[in-house]
Amino acid sequence: MSEILSAGSIEGVVRKDVPERVISRLPIYLQAVETIAAIGQTTVSSETLAAQSGVSPAILRKDLSQLGRSGRRGVGYSAQDLAATLRSFLGLDRAQNVAIIGAGRLGSALADYAGFQRRGLRLTAIFDSDEGKVGTTIGDLTVSAIADLATWADPIDLVVMAVPASAAPAAARIAAEAGVRGILNFAPTVLDTPETVRVQQVDLASELQVLAYYSALETATATPVEEHSN
Amino acid sequence: MSEILSAGSIEGVVRKDVPERVISRLPIYLQAVETIAAIGQTTVSSETLAAQSGVSPAILRKDLSQLGRSGRRGVGYSAQDLAATLRSFLGLDRAQNVAIIGAGRLGSALADYAGFQRRGLRLTAIFDSDEGKVGTTIGDLTVSAIADLATWADPIDLVVMAVPASAAPAAARIAAEAGVRGILNFAPTVLDTPETVRVQQVDLASELQVLAYYSALETATATPVEEHSN
Repeated sequence: MSEILSAGSIEGVVRKDVPERVISRLPIYLQAVETIAAIGQTTVSSETLAAQSGVSPAILRKDLSQLGRSGRRGVGYSAQDLAATLRSFLGLDRAQNVAIIGAGRLGSALADYAGFQRRGLRLTAIFDSDEGKVGTTIGDLTVSAIADLATWADPIDLVVMAVPASAAPAAARIAAEAGVRGILNFAPTVLDTPETVRVQQVDLASELQVLAYYSALETATATPVEEHSN
Repeated sequence: MSEILSAGSIEGVVRKDVPERVISRLPIYLQAVETIAAIGQTTVSSETLAAQSGVSPAILRKDLSQLGRSGRRGVGYSAQDLAATLRSFLGLDRAQNVAIIGAGRLGSALADYAGFQRRGLRLTAIFDSDEGKVGTTIGDLTVSAIADLATWADPIDLVVMAVPASAAPAAARIAAEAGVRGILNFAPTVLDTPETVRVQQVDLASELQVLAYYSALETATATPVEEHSN
């Protein structure tokens, strides 16, 4: 089977069956396949795509088969079709409006950093609660007062939370009330949001502690650790 | 059984059996239980700890049982013992030396941001390849030339990579040669490191794309989807 899932055939129940750990790898595959398509290559092998994505070919093939995509033997995947499937599956058919809350050093760095546009994301606003920052510019954007988020004309889909832990809960409440559906939270605190708002935590210290675990493990076992595929 | 794993009894083979997704939650539990211990509470229920960690009590109990820890009925976990087990399991018995590579806006923001010290991590150096930045200070640290990493006196365990994608592979090679065991990579590129160096990718756009998926999912189903029993 090499039938391609079109946007229309992706329904809630199908999408829900794909585990979170698979979902979290799809953006990485998308970036890799878009890079490959951008240099003019029309097909890509699972081996190449897996290497570019930092996973094993077996995991890649299994993940993509869950989207109804399989490569053709000896040919691989159509780069453009695979990119379209991934974009559609991830809900990136229409650009997602992203706002950063927190115009401090981290928020400013993140505004620079991501190459949003190229990846189906549109950074449309930066908010801060500090009157002194409101009206200043970061890149193309003027910092707005966080109170304005509630009545923002162009609805914001996703928020990057780059404020201190103490300020994050109040900012998350405002975002939830404004209809934001997802928060990428750099503040080192758990956000208690309604079920309609998904929170993804980015915690530098936690990520380093996970690395510390594997570092200690390597020292103890002295052999490479295999990836768990589940 | 509520026997406590001591540092000595944690061996490679035991640690290897714990899945990556469980490992990734342990730092969150550690932070929660340390916070609870810090306010003077000696025991904590799985419900409280789960709520503070943003997981369900069932997942929390299952995760901790994999470390050989179970709470006592009606009492919960000993906060201090649980914190010690988690620290030991994560290899945080001794502080991990962390360096940031990249003294730009992101690197500087990250140097401020994490509360390393409190979490078993010691930010000991910041490197940059830009001669203009070498010798400047960020917080308590003086920016060093990246070439000096190879002969750095105080061995560096973990690196936070905060350089542009184009500069990341060369920096990763230097880090690997210097004996670094883990890289937290903010550069939007796959790093090809030896097997002794684990790379954890932090990709803002990918994280947002995962949120976009769930945001679109919510919109598509409009109401909470019930489990299908077929």
